[in-house]
Amino acid sequence: MTSERSAPPTISEVAAEAGVGRSTAARTLGGYGYVSPEVRERVLAAAERIGYRANALARSMSTGVSHTLGVIVADIGNPFFGGVVRGISDASRERGFDTLVLSTHEDLGEEVAAANVLIDKRVDGIIIASAALDAASAEHIAQAQAHGIPVVLVDRAIPGLALDAVVIDNRSASREAVNTLIAAGHRRIGFIWGPPVDERPLRRRDLIELAMRNLWTDGERLQGYLDALDDEGIRFDPELVMVGPKTEEHAQAEVTRMLALDDPPTALFCTETDAVTGALRSIRAAGLRVGGDISLIGFDDSSWAAVMEPPLTMIEQPMLALGTRAAEVLFAAIDGEAVEARVHTLDTRLVARASVAPPAAPTSP
Amino acid sequence: MTSERSAPPTISEVAAEAGVGRSTAARTLGGYGYVSPEVRERVLAAAERIGYRANALARSMSTGVSHTLGVIVADIGNPFFGGVVRGISDASRERGFDTLVLSTHEDLGEEVAAANVLIDKRVDGIIIASAALDAASAEHIAQAQAHGIPVVLVDRAIPGLALDAVVIDNRSASREAVNTLIAAGHRRIGFIWGPPVDERPLRRRDLIELAMRNLWTDGERLQGYLDALDDEGIRFDPELVMVGPKTEEHAQAEVTRMLALDDPPTALFCTETDAVTGALRSIRAAGLRVGGDISLIGFDDSSWAAVMEPPLTMIEQPMLALGTRAAEVLFAAIDGEAVEARVHTLDTRLVARASVAPPAAPTSP
Repeated sequence: MTSERSAPPTISEVAAEAGVGRSTAARTLGGYGYVSPEVRERVLAAAERIGYRANALARSMSTGVSHTLGVIVADIGNPFFGGVVRGISDASRERGFDTLVLSTHEDLGEEVAAANVLIDKRVDGIIIASAALDAASAEHIAQAQAHGIPVVLVDRAIPGLALDAVVIDNRSASREAVNTLIAAGHRRIGFIWGPPVDERPLRRRDLIELAMRNLWTDGERLQGYLDALDDEGIRFDPELVMVGPKTEEHAQAEVTRMLALDDPPTALFCTETDAVTGALRSIRAAGLRVGGDISLIGFDDSSWAAVMEPPLTMIEQPMLALGTRAAEVLFAAIDGEAVEARVHTLDTRLVARASVAPPAAPTSP
Repeated sequence: MTSERSAPPTISEVAAEAGVGRSTAARTLGGYGYVSPEVRERVLAAAERIGYRANALARSMSTGVSHTLGVIVADIGNPFFGGVVRGISDASRERGFDTLVLSTHEDLGEEVAAANVLIDKRVDGIIIASAALDAASAEHIAQAQAHGIPVVLVDRAIPGLALDAVVIDNRSASREAVNTLIAAGHRRIGFIWGPPVDERPLRRRDLIELAMRNLWTDGERLQGYLDALDDEGIRFDPELVMVGPKTEEHAQAEVTRMLALDDPPTALFCTETDAVTGALRSIRAAGLRVGGDISLIGFDDSSWAAVMEPPLTMIEQPMLALGTRAAEVLFAAIDGEAVEARVHTLDTRLVARASVAPPAAPTSP
């Protein structure tokens, strides 16, 4: 027979001792949702007085609810993903959920490890911007689902995988940008950046095949570029597509190479922030003027783009909205409102500023 | 008496079945460190065949080691913190640790909740860029330490709290930047941004008191500005210090106000990226030219600053190194190499480009 005094105190007893409601005490002791520092202190003092010992792990094991979302992104240092994560954490905070973020450096092995950490930490749901190129590489996602953890993709769909994904239409956005350059009179348009291969593919179908084996977003953006050329019957020139490492330095080198061609590009379409800044370094080094000597449209709007001289025309992605929508879709799944998985496509916006003008000199026919 | 078959299989048995080393099996089943997708699949298949059931929570409770670091930052959408987190996760990955990140929107209540989540998730150590202004607001840090979890501060020290902190010398960096402007001949120098108060403090000592009650980094940067004025015997003018909300829009409004003064600033020192872009919007709207009509130095280097017209002179913070150093200090504590807590100060660099020139017109004496 155990004495009554040895029975561990309950959350309700802590709440009574602290003079707060049970849910406030639970939030404080459970470490989820918002509690003011003063109330928190009162609850913790009460818990200490009556000898309450939180054991979150044990509690989590018995209830199966941790009130946390897990997020896996390719690179937390990229402001785009920073914005997406902010959108997710805004939406989850409204539901009283905390958000745990892991970054994978675009490495699928790291992503698998990250998914396992989140399964181990018993998160209630996972949002992934995945480095997986196809369904065969997405075993870790199936693994999470097998543990009863719903998964939603953000920014990148995985071809062949029936899973909710919240993305933009990269292909249409690119097509619109390149068509804008064509409408201004350009026919020699450089594409920065393309597949990360060493050898430049000379045939269009080889390029498309490489694009399909590339990251989904990058592949879609290259296809949109080719679509726009097709729209106007402009012949694809492999010399105008960047290949090789996706870095600012290499973007600069590839633009420098293109500008030295006999028939150089009169416009550039840059599909990442680092592609834009790399291209601008090369343009500056060549003594050319954006908007005058060479036109440019970038992807991924930044507050810097608006204060450039001239201000840059950019495709603005709804970073925050991608995050909040992904969280909403995930919460619907957590709440058991299961509907058929689908791709949710959010709108982008081409923000016209002053970096697009007619070609400086007539281009060759 | 229980039959031998009912004893749960061990990690070593899984390793033997999969034909891999025990540590590889442990990494795979524990979800930490790197395992190639192929090996991972083989280990998981072996685990399934012999009926191994990972129970990470139970294992974590018994061993007390989770191989994860927790990181709490004010705003994950800010590229500065993105860089710091990247540094942390690079260093922890080398040790086979995963990194869980939470973002608090500069809200101390959120920070307290985040610390509790990490305590609950039994991380091995915590790195915080804290919103706490003094030791009295740092109860959650003491709480983590009471749970045996070492804590290291990054980017921001907490005055009065004896805790390892990895920071830059904000005050010296600001002083150097403002002295650079003074050396170019400027005596009317605007400070963007200052304390987030509604009413402009008119007396220098009121301003300093507000600065001390502000975020540590912001307060230090303001003191460095005042130091530099003192160095040259330049009288402080309250009209040249931004007050109010710390946003790009408000920075723009404050610079516009300053430019309309009878004796406007001939140079600006902007202490955040959004302060720089807000100032540039105002300068552009006034039809002024950076480097010619008005000089400017910013804080927080970005790849954009180098491709501006003209390229901007900026104080470069060692974002990655702040993160890696913080992780190193934390791992020393985790490894039990306890030394006295201290502030670790990393160097900044003033990257001189072309946004500083002598004043366009002679300033008043």
